[in-house]
Amino acid sequence: MHILKVGLKNRSYNIIIGQGALRQLGRHIKALGLGDVAYIITNRFIKKRHGAILDKVLKRARIERRFKLVADSEKSKSLETVSSIISEITAYDKNRKIFIIAFGGGVIGDLSGFVASIYKRGVSYIQVPTTLLAQVDSSIGGKTAVDLKEAKNLVGAFYQPGLVCSEVGFLKTLKPRQLRSGLAEAIKYGIIKEASFFHYLEKRYKDALLLKKPVIEFIVKKCSSIKADFVSRDEREERGIRTALNFGHTIGHALEAASGYNAYNHGEAIALGMLVAADISRRLGLIDNAVLVRIERLIKAVGLPLRIKGVGLTSIIKAYYHDKKFRGSKNRLVLISAIGKARVTEEVPLALIKEAIKSRF
Amino acid sequence: MHILKVGLKNRSYNIIIGQGALRQLGRHIKALGLGDVAYIITNRFIKKRHGAILDKVLKRARIERRFKLVADSEKSKSLETVSSIISEITAYDKNRKIFIIAFGGGVIGDLSGFVASIYKRGVSYIQVPTTLLAQVDSSIGGKTAVDLKEAKNLVGAFYQPGLVCSEVGFLKTLKPRQLRSGLAEAIKYGIIKEASFFHYLEKRYKDALLLKKPVIEFIVKKCSSIKADFVSRDEREERGIRTALNFGHTIGHALEAASGYNAYNHGEAIALGMLVAADISRRLGLIDNAVLVRIERLIKAVGLPLRIKGVGLTSIIKAYYHDKKFRGSKNRLVLISAIGKARVTEEVPLALIKEAIKSRF
Repeated sequence: MHILKVGLKNRSYNIIIGQGALRQLGRHIKALGLGDVAYIITNRFIKKRHGAILDKVLKRARIERRFKLVADSEKSKSLETVSSIISEITAYDKNRKIFIIAFGGGVIGDLSGFVASIYKRGVSYIQVPTTLLAQVDSSIGGKTAVDLKEAKNLVGAFYQPGLVCSEVGFLKTLKPRQLRSGLAEAIKYGIIKEASFFHYLEKRYKDALLLKKPVIEFIVKKCSSIKADFVSRDEREERGIRTALNFGHTIGHALEAASGYNAYNHGEAIALGMLVAADISRRLGLIDNAVLVRIERLIKAVGLPLRIKGVGLTSIIKAYYHDKKFRGSKNRLVLISAIGKARVTEEVPLALIKEAIKSRF
Repeated sequence: MHILKVGLKNRSYNIIIGQGALRQLGRHIKALGLGDVAYIITNRFIKKRHGAILDKVLKRARIERRFKLVADSEKSKSLETVSSIISEITAYDKNRKIFIIAFGGGVIGDLSGFVASIYKRGVSYIQVPTTLLAQVDSSIGGKTAVDLKEAKNLVGAFYQPGLVCSEVGFLKTLKPRQLRSGLAEAIKYGIIKEASFFHYLEKRYKDALLLKKPVIEFIVKKCSSIKADFVSRDEREERGIRTALNFGHTIGHALEAASGYNAYNHGEAIALGMLVAADISRRLGLIDNAVLVRIERLIKAVGLPLRIKGVGLTSIIKAYYHDKKFRGSKNRLVLISAIGKARVTEEVPLALIKEAIKSRF
């Protein structure tokens, strides 16, 4: 069992990681005084697979609990869902000390965190991520949001959880494609921050895909620690530090949107986005071709895509501008100057971005 | 012109108060770097009366601006309004540096602040309160919220404005009843915090009702300063300090709800709530009868109600419990031990509360 701390003064919190982390949850909730009544937001697949054990853990800690099922899709991230959940929590609450548990992947984490941030001007919540992607990335750092029809994540809050509980035992029930998606984010941390971790992934990716316990635990721990460090130094992404975590995400998001959010999952789109960003870095002379080749080789080995399929340049660029309209200006991209070294660059020429995307078809 | 500071570390902000404060607004916005594009949330009455001057001030500061009109009623404080406003801001935004101006009374302030808190995980906003009630109370302190059908203010955020601009010139267009409503909150500050200010109101209430400039400016400044002090010491109402500001509000809210939010305006309900709370303090031996009489006399002089009409004890108590269900337990009330001295008291016997209400019929 590992315990990491996200240092944010009076909003600091722990991440407990490992096989058996879930069994410790009750004790941690009690120690933190988070509340006596849990409202657990999840979906029916996760509840079916892992609901009984969470229920047992909470029951043993004498925490009253109710499961709320939402649809297993991005569609759950809507103001309508928020409104209906809050009406239900209100009926359940009866002025006891209620807290929320986000029990699932990124969609459930984003939605639940946002509900917690606005219900009665903020109640405690816990992230219990069940996917590798959520464990290494989205459960940490307090970015919560729902979508509007105009754009994803347009409405939200920075609102930190009281605790993150990453039970690696949950990962056994993931489909290989979901596991690979999570590994894309792990590769990202190596590329932007720690060359030795990238090297570790080059050596141990097979064990990771086989869910060998020490390897997968190390990966979750290492990624969580890197993420916690970025978040501690730039909680609200105001200083250009946390921005580095968006490596591969600008083009990745455009690719997800252009393909209607069903051709690629998040990790696959980010893998392609990282390849494009690395290629732009190469074209700008920031890295040698050998660095790009090394990144390509690892992405391929893990089973993530190297080529963009089923969507054209025009629609990717259109989605890129749509996203940019809401999120950032001046063609700002996260690039790299080496494995382990990210840099935020503004005013990247559009022609260069297009070339780099085209070379991925 | 007076400038007060609400000290909240990196969330500190100024309150500019006085005749002519609005003319200074452009300069302050520029100095703070709040943005180049203003989205002004208001209603048609305020826009008609004061819109042209705000428009001119912003234009002179080269700030692009758009007015958004919402209904002049508590009904505007809904998630539906939030959703439609955000869709509109999104279309207007186009990735420029947008900020929101809450231009109106309490309803507009609460709604606009909440929109600002969740749009893109938080953008800057300014409070430009146009009622005495909003100037002395709701525009300061960052409590933002909208209502759900289950209860008022059930969804919201603590989210501080970047600036409050209290133009006392606006108060000239208030109806006498609105002015008296604001004075109820002013009386509250005297009762809970500053006996000398209570005494000042006893001497000068006539000048206040006549909107004599030095008097009304002094009142807005004094109340803002007391509110700022409570907020600085207990931003999120976690330490029982900010709680004192709820003097008169527990019973006041119940009275508003029981009478369907149309018999009494906020200040009138709070005046009656203060009388009940003072009477409970007397019944518990915390104050002499003379103190209650003094409070009654000032409330009467200002033209606020002394007697509860058109609503019965049962429905008030029912509303009290409904509110309590969502907000607080143990019959917690703010009581007083003297003019200028508030104390939060738990477990006040219900029988006593009922007696004090009954004596107001």
